[in-house]
Amino acid sequence: MEYRIEKDTMGEVKVPANQYWGAQTERSRNNFKIGEPGSMPKEIIEGFAYLKKAAAYANCELGVLSTEKRDAIAQVCDEILAGKLDAEFPLVIWQTGSGTQSNMNVNEVIANRAQVLMGGKIGEGEAFVKANDDVNKSQSSNDTFPTGMHIAAYKSVVSRTLPAVKKLRDTLHEKAVAYKNVVKIGRTHLMDATPLTLGQELSGYVAQLDYGMKALENTLAHLRELALGGTAVGTGLNTPEGYDVLVAEYIAKFTGLPFVTAPNKFEALASHDAIVESHGALKQLAVSLNKIANDIRMLASGPRSGIGEIFIPENEPGSSIMPGKVNPTQCEAMTMVCAQVMGNDVAISVGGMQGHYELNVFKPVMAANFLQSARLIADACLSFDEHCAQGIEPNYKRIKELVDNSLMLVTALNTKIGYYKAAEIAQTAHKNGTTLKEEAVRLGYVSEADFDAWVKPEDMVGKIN
Amino acid sequence: MEYRIEKDTMGEVKVPANQYWGAQTERSRNNFKIGEPGSMPKEIIEGFAYLKKAAAYANCELGVLSTEKRDAIAQVCDEILAGKLDAEFPLVIWQTGSGTQSNMNVNEVIANRAQVLMGGKIGEGEAFVKANDDVNKSQSSNDTFPTGMHIAAYKSVVSRTLPAVKKLRDTLHEKAVAYKNVVKIGRTHLMDATPLTLGQELSGYVAQLDYGMKALENTLAHLRELALGGTAVGTGLNTPEGYDVLVAEYIAKFTGLPFVTAPNKFEALASHDAIVESHGALKQLAVSLNKIANDIRMLASGPRSGIGEIFIPENEPGSSIMPGKVNPTQCEAMTMVCAQVMGNDVAISVGGMQGHYELNVFKPVMAANFLQSARLIADACLSFDEHCAQGIEPNYKRIKELVDNSLMLVTALNTKIGYYKAAEIAQTAHKNGTTLKEEAVRLGYVSEADFDAWVKPEDMVGKIN
Amino acid sequence: MEYRIEKDTMGEVKVPANQYWGAQTERSRNNFKIGEPGSMPKEIIEGFAYLKKAAAYANCELGVLSTEKRDAIAQVCDEILAGKLDAEFPLVIWQTGSGTQSNMNVNEVIANRAQVLMGGKIGEGEAFVKANDDVNKSQSSNDTFPTGMHIAAYKSVVSRTLPAVKKLRDTLHEKAVAYKNVVKIGRTHLMDATPLTLGQELSGYVAQLDYGMKALENTLAHLRELALGGTAVGTGLNTPEGYDVLVAEYIAKFTGLPFVTAPNKFEALASHDAIVESHGALKQLAVSLNKIANDIRMLASGPRSGIGEIFIPENEPGSSIMPGKVNPTQCEAMTMVCAQVMGNDVAISVGGMQGHYELNVFKPVMAANFLQSARLIADACLSFDEHCAQGIEPNYKRIKELVDNSLMLVTALNTKIGYYKAAEIAQTAHKNGTTLKEEAVRLGYVSEADFDAWVKPEDMVGKIN
Amino acid sequence: MEYRIEKDTMGEVKVPANQYWGAQTERSRNNFKIGEPGSMPKEIIEGFAYLKKAAAYANCELGVLSTEKRDAIAQVCDEILAGKLDAEFPLVIWQTGSGTQSNMNVNEVIANRAQVLMGGKIGEGEAFVKANDDVNKSQSSNDTFPTGMHIAAYKSVVSRTLPAVKKLRDTLHEKAVAYKNVVKIGRTHLMDATPLTLGQELSGYVAQLDYGMKALENTLAHLRELALGGTAVGTGLNTPEGYDVLVAEYIAKFTGLPFVTAPNKFEALASHDAIVESHGALKQLAVSLNKIANDIRMLASGPRSGIGEIFIPENEPGSSIMPGKVNPTQCEAMTMVCAQVMGNDVAISVGGMQGHYELNVFKPVMAANFLQSARLIADACLSFDEHCAQGIEPNYKRIKELVDNSLMLVTALNTKIGYYKAAEIAQTAHKNGTTLKEEAVRLGYVSEADFDAWVKPEDMVGKIN
Repeated sequence: MEYRIEKDTMGEVKVPANQYWGAQTERSRNNFKIGEPGSMPKEIIEGFAYLKKAAAYANCELGVLSTEKRDAIAQVCDEILAGKLDAEFPLVIWQTGSGTQSNMNVNEVIANRAQVLMGGKIGEGEAFVKANDDVNKSQSSNDTFPTGMHIAAYKSVVSRTLPAVKKLRDTLHEKAVAYKNVVKIGRTHLMDATPLTLGQELSGYVAQLDYGMKALENTLAHLRELALGGTAVGTGLNTPEGYDVLVAEYIAKFTGLPFVTAPNKFEALASHDAIVESHGALKQLAVSLNKIANDIRMLASGPRSGIGEIFIPENEPGSSIMPGKVNPTQCEAMTMVCAQVMGNDVAISVGGMQGHYELNVFKPVMAANFLQSARLIADACLSFDEHCAQGIEPNYKRIKELVDNSLMLVTALNTKIGYYKAAEIAQTAHKNGTTLKEEAVRLGYVSEADFDAWVKPEDMVGKIN
Repeated sequence: MEYRIEKDTMGEVKVPANQYWGAQTERSRNNFKIGEPGSMPKEIIEGFAYLKKAAAYANCELGVLSTEKRDAIAQVCDEILAGKLDAEFPLVIWQTGSGTQSNMNVNEVIANRAQVLMGGKIGEGEAFVKANDDVNKSQSSNDTFPTGMHIAAYKSVVSRTLPAVKKLRDTLHEKAVAYKNVVKIGRTHLMDATPLTLGQELSGYVAQLDYGMKALENTLAHLRELALGGTAVGTGLNTPEGYDVLVAEYIAKFTGLPFVTAPNKFEALASHDAIVESHGALKQLAVSLNKIANDIRMLASGPRSGIGEIFIPENEPGSSIMPGKVNPTQCEAMTMVCAQVMGNDVAISVGGMQGHYELNVFKPVMAANFLQSARLIADACLSFDEHCAQGIEPNYKRIKELVDNSLMLVTALNTKIGYYKAAEIAQTAHKNGTTLKEEAVRLGYVSEADFDAWVKPEDMVGKIN
Repeated sequence: MEYRIEKDTMGEVKVPANQYWGAQTERSRNNFKIGEPGSMPKEIIEGFAYLKKAAAYANCELGVLSTEKRDAIAQVCDEILAGKLDAEFPLVIWQTGSGTQSNMNVNEVIANRAQVLMGGKIGEGEAFVKANDDVNKSQSSNDTFPTGMHIAAYKSVVSRTLPAVKKLRDTLHEKAVAYKNVVKIGRTHLMDATPLTLGQELSGYVAQLDYGMKALENTLAHLRELALGGTAVGTGLNTPEGYDVLVAEYIAKFTGLPFVTAPNKFEALASHDAIVESHGALKQLAVSLNKIANDIRMLASGPRSGIGEIFIPENEPGSSIMPGKVNPTQCEAMTMVCAQVMGNDVAISVGGMQGHYELNVFKPVMAANFLQSARLIADACLSFDEHCAQGIEPNYKRIKELVDNSLMLVTALNTKIGYYKAAEIAQTAHKNGTTLKEEAVRLGYVSEADFDAWVKPEDMVGKIN
Repeated sequence: MEYRIEKDTMGEVKVPANQYWGAQTERSRNNFKIGEPGSMPKEIIEGFAYLKKAAAYANCELGVLSTEKRDAIAQVCDEILAGKLDAEFPLVIWQTGSGTQSNMNVNEVIANRAQVLMGGKIGEGEAFVKANDDVNKSQSSNDTFPTGMHIAAYKSVVSRTLPAVKKLRDTLHEKAVAYKNVVKIGRTHLMDATPLTLGQELSGYVAQLDYGMKALENTLAHLRELALGGTAVGTGLNTPEGYDVLVAEYIAKFTGLPFVTAPNKFEALASHDAIVESHGALKQLAVSLNKIANDIRMLASGPRSGIGEIFIPENEPGSSIMPGKVNPTQCEAMTMVCAQVMGNDVAISVGGMQGHYELNVFKPVMAANFLQSARLIADACLSFDEHCAQGIEPNYKRIKELVDNSLMLVTALNTKIGYYKAAEIAQTAHKNGTTLKEEAVRLGYVSEADFDAWVKPEDMVGKIN
């Protein structure tokens, strides 16, 4: 491979000749061979592109960067956003905990690419824009990385996670409405209980997702705050007056999202509670989705030896050995995603709790876990929606069979003959394998006519909305 | 021990003669000898007392319970709230996952105590109020336990946790204001960085706690929703029209807290995402408090071989073997509490994700962990506030010594001579063990006068609010 | 309340006159009002009693403590072990992270109680044995607390957890043997699969518990190592030659358990990986037990609308509103315990990872979580064994009905007619609601005689051991 | 793109013409668009290649597969192991929880590639080896995936993790030996304590890693057990007599690792406690490594305002804004890895605890998290070793300065003048900012000569090994 020589404050480094990155990126590549190369999430790089462009505009407007430099920087940022420079970001999550080297990776690529765009050659003559002095002007890794992280996290949540959860929620709501009158057996403790409708059962899932989305939305006010302008330790050293507010405005403009400058930059560098907070809501969604997906696979279990009250789509042959088998695979993918999000929450919290003094140095691991959760929940909801939820249908025959046979319909008698006598009826029918009505009449507690009038599953499900 | 015979639908049970509880409580005592007896949190029992009284009032108002029964039930509930019957609740967390037996424990104690209050004798004659038919009227364990849990959780958060965090936050804010001009070295990556003031550093902690309290408050809208009225599976079977709204109003009235009925009772029984959600915020507070307490003990470390920039109160002899040693013990208690809350969050999430069909049966473990976290954070904040935070004082001499000696003041030169030359100055001074000024002048990059004019720690800390 | 005055190196403290504890205990009581008083686990106090006695013997044998003092100390330790001084240990988990004050609590109680036993009066005259100089001789909190913690943890595991898990394991094994020929439908992905016997299914649980016990036993070699002899930082300062080995021998002798001195005392003070390690195995058991208990409640679900292949004991009325309902309550207690242990594992790991320099100061929280897990698993296994596992019985009728009806018996035809034709048979029977045999013959793939010869559930379960 | 038509039991599917995979792989690609494509770990595919080859050999030896088919299958497996077919495995982690489709992906690729190798054309004529009937013969996804998972996990642990941890351990041990006589201040509670040597301090880390490796090795006996031979539900349906033992022998032979058949196949399919168990040990290592890396960055902190007792290598410019700054970046990468492993442990445990009946369907998520942890720990240890640990050097000047100045040397006087007088000396020196000797003499407790004789840091560190 051909190399060129790049320099930083520590000396010279050989860099692949055909790459835009510079000395510090190369050092990091060599010093951190941990896990798969290039694992730093591309959403973070995208966040950096937005913020570098915004910083150039703010610096220019405040008189500390020329228009020419601003435009050169912005042009490269736009190339990054367009995905044209994807091969230039080879670094891993497992680097400096401030993400310093990913910041420098972006700075170096912008500086060198701008050199070429301006007709120059990398490493020849004075750099048109300098990585530290120009591209990184009024910035530090310590405020850029959390800014890139918040841009990426916020964008993922509002453009991916929330719409996907909403889509699944809407499908479940449609189903809840469609089946609002389908009376079925309820189950508590996994045991037969009083009846409800399938629509009511599904409405509980809808409510869970509504609460989850609300909880996630509640966290966005914190997540939209940006650290940029704090520079090294939060004091804003080496930034022009008004820069922090202005740069956030530019980021808001370029992303189309309501970002604002963080009121306290010390907090914004030294802790990442906003990430902890928003991921807490993602974890809540995982808790909900696990319950929902697990219920659906149990309700669909069978075909002959399970619960079998609903049908779900048959998407793939389910077994390499058992012919004709079909499995609730979307439920399985979903619950695996939920397990992952549970784990990610711990990784994020463990990182969040260990900040020291003016800086938390668990930024990349927190960012990576957050972005994975946000994407996995989104993708899994869309997949589950399309390949499972939309196809849910009641097995009317089975549902009716089970509800008619249930001993817990006896609960309707509580208010007529009291809990104790009702219990006696149910226990006797259970023991004898008979029906409630038979035993109710035989025990002399209820007449046949009264039984028929009082014990009607359809009257036991309350008001249907 | 003397016994009396109590009965339930399964038959006779011997119960200690001097206790008010009945057959089902006694069965549970015998069937669940897991962990310390009586571990069911007393806040839950208190929550039950509120709801049983409210249910009696609502049932009475809706015409399904007599005024006499209502008053008898309410009288016992008031005794429970006054702590007079504490010895009557012997059950453990590790019982039925719906908390059925704790519900029955309360029902039985109320019924039997009412019998005595009405001049009767337990087990003799017709019960004046019956455990299932009267005390539990229009209720099920499945809606009472989550209601008691929400009452207890909400009350703990607003009466304990939030005020305690606020107290600590206010003390830290006072300190932040008091020391807003004390310029000190900043530290990033645990390494010397550019200066900030002690007040700024502390303001970051204040911001963390402000965000944490806001996050916790954001969850209260969900937590104040009560399941009561859903009865067995959420349909409200065996409740009179309007009961759910009315009973929540009574609970709000009796507790003085803004409880409302849950709009979807299926969600309220089958999932406890509100607990997951609010505890997520408690966990966020733990993440913040761990960072704060850890910083404070590092800043106070020494007395001669540590950082030593602040003094914290000396509360106890710190060592049984090293005479004269004093330790940051409040920080240690606090960080241990944070570790516990981190664990509790996982226990709660694991419980929350495993609901089945119409019921989540991890209610007691979720409640117990929640209440422990809410209390521990509260108690630890008060303790930390009184015995540590209030006594924080700067070690002015040490602070000045360190900031004056710092190499990172060189950052002020970036905008004057560029990052590369500034780096050379710092590296040379580091290598030679000299001062920045010496090397800046010797390298010929800055005149002595310029150095003095440009490198002033007090000018490097930005605007002080 | 009456008080007496006690002194420590910081000055005078008022202590309740009727208690044996001294100044430092009282300071801790006042400085750490966090959570319930007296929460420091009593197993830890017991561990301290063993080690204080052993230290007295070792110190005496090595010539640094008189026989009289040794005997006085030992006498009080024996009283502690006999439970006579339980009211003298009022401190909480949430104190100094080294447990210094609980060490001093024990030192003070022993010193003052010895004074009385020797006929003296607390606080009058020279102390017969001194808390620091005699009781704590050759010790530090930093090596005593981890020693007490290991004694308590090891003892809990071998005397409580392992025997209880073994008991449940043996019951399940008996059942596995008893039902080794009961052919039933298998279920994978919750869906009908090829048959196995009930005994085989149960044997999987037995294997899980066997692996879990083995895993726990594997950790005991580390857990039995004791820090005692390391004193303040692991160097053994102020201990006589040979003390560490000897004191471990005395502890082994007094407890009857194979304790040894830790080969590296620096590790033994600064990290508690042995606790992390052993609790990892407890967590593994929780993972196993959760699976087992969950399976059992699903298999027992019904009575009419569930799986219903086994019966489990009916222990309590299951519902306060649904008469005659019976629930798998032991499964619920068990799975709640498992959720708790999952959380405890995180609390312990978070504590374990945050040691600093020569000392980990998360000792009490690690110890408390460990001891809770060890006890809860033990108690829950005994409870589950007695009230659930022993009563498991097959529902032969239901089991036969389900297996005979299963479509997955078709798998037996794979090796005869190939996977594709077998799949066609199963799918057709599923679609038409018919039997495999009908469709196999109608499709012309198998003759009736061959079908009967090839498709026998009892031939599909492999070798039965 | 060009397509060809493939078929499975559900019908026809269009598959990219230039890929070897078949219908079921393509269905999975379309049905599970969750996260990055191709995320199923390549170590799993490699595990499958070993087991498919071994199964072909065992089937052939037992007379159920021809030699020609065996060799064709084996040839493709060897190509997979040589990395020649990497582009043929496009599936994701988030699929069926049994990994069925990854099993079929391997089956299909082997069948189609064999067709080509035999001179045929995919989809034309009778397949030379059939995906289900030949490649998958005597197998099920339910036993192949866990087998592939164990092969991958075991191999990762013994070929990556253990050697890497060992390498770091050996470096630390060398350093411990090299600096065994460098007396330095100890620190407990982050506060000055009695002295120890730098070698002793480092030896604690060595001991931690030794215990961690031992703990991991203890789990290997379980991890080397293979599920293969259990087929669909553990009964071994459709396998020839002796197959399970033989196939494990072939896997052992082909991998060179001591795999054996699992004695209980029901456990091996329905639970993955071996993965839980081994990952528990990986988590323990993460707990240890976090402590070690954190200590090292604290000890190296400075250069002027920190602890500064050791030097670590300066690998990269540490700041994009602070010139000349160097940071403990390897410590940060390591602690981020530790946070990740903590999270992965929860993901794995959550997956492990939710198996149902005869199958755990969290296999891919458990496998992926395990393999990530095993690799990250390995890579991070090698990186940390090379770029940090090997370069650790004492800052002798600073070390001496701090130890000489310490107040905790007073502890040496305990056994001479008692704890109380020693405390008074330390407290007075602390208050007055004087030396221990000055105050010891001035208070009249010790003569100058005795002080010099008794208080020698080098005598306070115990025996040096």
